[in-house]
Amino acid sequence: MRNKQINSEEVEMSNYSDYLKQIDNEFWLIEGETTNLDIFYKIKEIIFSEQSQYQHIMILDSYDFGRMLVLDRAIQTTARDGFIYNEMISHIPMNIHPTPKRVLIIGGGDCGTAREVAKYSHVEQIDMVEIDGMVVKVCLEHLSEVSGNLSDPRVNFIFQDGIKFVENITNPKDFYDVIIVDSSDPVGPAVPLFGLDFYKSLYNILKNDGLMVCQSDSPIFHFETMKQTYKRLCSLFPITRPYTTVVPTYPGGMWSFTLASKKYRDTNPSQFDKENKNTKYVNSEILKQCFSLPEFVRSRLMDSN
Amino acid sequence: MRNKQINSEEVEMSNYSDYLKQIDNEFWLIEGETTNLDIFYKIKEIIFSEQSQYQHIMILDSYDFGRMLVLDRAIQTTARDGFIYNEMISHIPMNIHPTPKRVLIIGGGDCGTAREVAKYSHVEQIDMVEIDGMVVKVCLEHLSEVSGNLSDPRVNFIFQDGIKFVENITNPKDFYDVIIVDSSDPVGPAVPLFGLDFYKSLYNILKNDGLMVCQSDSPIFHFETMKQTYKRLCSLFPITRPYTTVVPTYPGGMWSFTLASKKYRDTNPSQFDKENKNTKYVNSEILKQCFSLPEFVRSRLMDSN
Repeated sequence: MRNKQINSEEVEMSNYSDYLKQIDNEFWLIEGETTNLDIFYKIKEIIFSEQSQYQHIMILDSYDFGRMLVLDRAIQTTARDGFIYNEMISHIPMNIHPTPKRVLIIGGGDCGTAREVAKYSHVEQIDMVEIDGMVVKVCLEHLSEVSGNLSDPRVNFIFQDGIKFVENITNPKDFYDVIIVDSSDPVGPAVPLFGLDFYKSLYNILKNDGLMVCQSDSPIFHFETMKQTYKRLCSLFPITRPYTTVVPTYPGGMWSFTLASKKYRDTNPSQFDKENKNTKYVNSEILKQCFSLPEFVRSRLMDSN
Repeated sequence: MRNKQINSEEVEMSNYSDYLKQIDNEFWLIEGETTNLDIFYKIKEIIFSEQSQYQHIMILDSYDFGRMLVLDRAIQTTARDGFIYNEMISHIPMNIHPTPKRVLIIGGGDCGTAREVAKYSHVEQIDMVEIDGMVVKVCLEHLSEVSGNLSDPRVNFIFQDGIKFVENITNPKDFYDVIIVDSSDPVGPAVPLFGLDFYKSLYNILKNDGLMVCQSDSPIFHFETMKQTYKRLCSLFPITRPYTTVVPTYPGGMWSFTLASKKYRDTNPSQFDKENKNTKYVNSEILKQCFSLPEFVRSRLMDSN
């Protein structure tokens, strides 16, 4: 669909892909959330571009957002604003659970979420299950603004399909305190990661006081995903709390997460203040208010239809 | 700068302007916040397009955001997300002041802010000073999703330069309880609306317990504007409180406002709950937390440099 703006014969084509265009000697990444909205980012340099077993992986150095990870045609994270998403998906659950020791991250190949989780000293083990090992390798090497050169003996990289990994856990000693589903959007291979069966599996491998969080898409463009996630998690967990934040490089600007918990419900802002987590987005004020939803989100979530 | 993406000889040019392009029989509005970022919105229909004395005014019906007001080349508001900006710039000050009777709006030609202010029954007079009368006329006629077909005897439309209007107010009986500066960004003619002299004039025409709010640009792309506004208002008012929200159609997604007050400081969420304002973004939960700033905004604002 991105080809509608510029016909191939009109510009000198790059040899990289159909969504990175060379126009007047400058590269532009063209990202579109819908067929009616295209965002052009001017690119300084192509740092990395390779097809993995699963997807086309690029690290691009952009003028406005610094280095960015692009999987197939979608920006996943950038040096400039990646901290917002990564801090919001990790510090909210990590702060709500009083003493998480075993943490599972599904996806999160840019390593930014694992980097934030590793800031908690009481954490003993972080299992990071990412299907595409090349993403992890590339982000550790070329996207240190997000991955933070993550090197922590508590992090186990497991390059495997998240659904299969979860199904194979049956021994209660392997259960988790916190599970973070840092997946791509529910398109193609990521669809099962938004399914009720997967959420049931996650429920089953959480400890009795465990909690999980997942990204649940854009309330502006894909409210149905957010609502479906909310309803599915409500059907399994006694406590389900959606929250939103702003991600400048995600189309629509607003993004949602959904937290589901067996026991703990509230953030602990004063505890966060006691420990310096060196964050750029989350602070105790954000923790106090993170579950306040805009009215159009709140009312549509509560609507029983 | 928007011409860099598509050379004029490569596409069939529209006869409207250089930022509304006809490509493969479809119209696209091209908006760019910087020279390195361009956003293409696919357009269903050009509802209105005319040059006023001050600017080029268009109402476009877009696929993703419905009808939008475009002044020169910048999207000002849309049917889909205009309520966020308009509710956040109006209900925060209107809720903090216990009984605002006289309200001044500078700018706000789309009438969305006046529409929200008019929801308060104790308001007796709303002076709306907009330099370009054509914007008001066009939005009332073609953008009812935002303007709400505003027709309220308390609203005085005054088509005049805001700075001159403010300078001519000297009689204390004409002073205001709440002033809302709903201006365009500090480029060209709107620059003086961000100046210290203008803020001093506003201070002078506020009652002894009055308060004001202004939009203060994107914390992502123009943090210096937000900080300058904060510092200038701090130098005049005993209470200055910045806040942010998300506006999907403003580049960077996050937007800032700065409130400055002579007396009142806190929102009154329970009061808001008592009166049904029929809002889509602001609710009592949002009022409780609106001044919670992301850490990167808070720390840079507090930094004395």
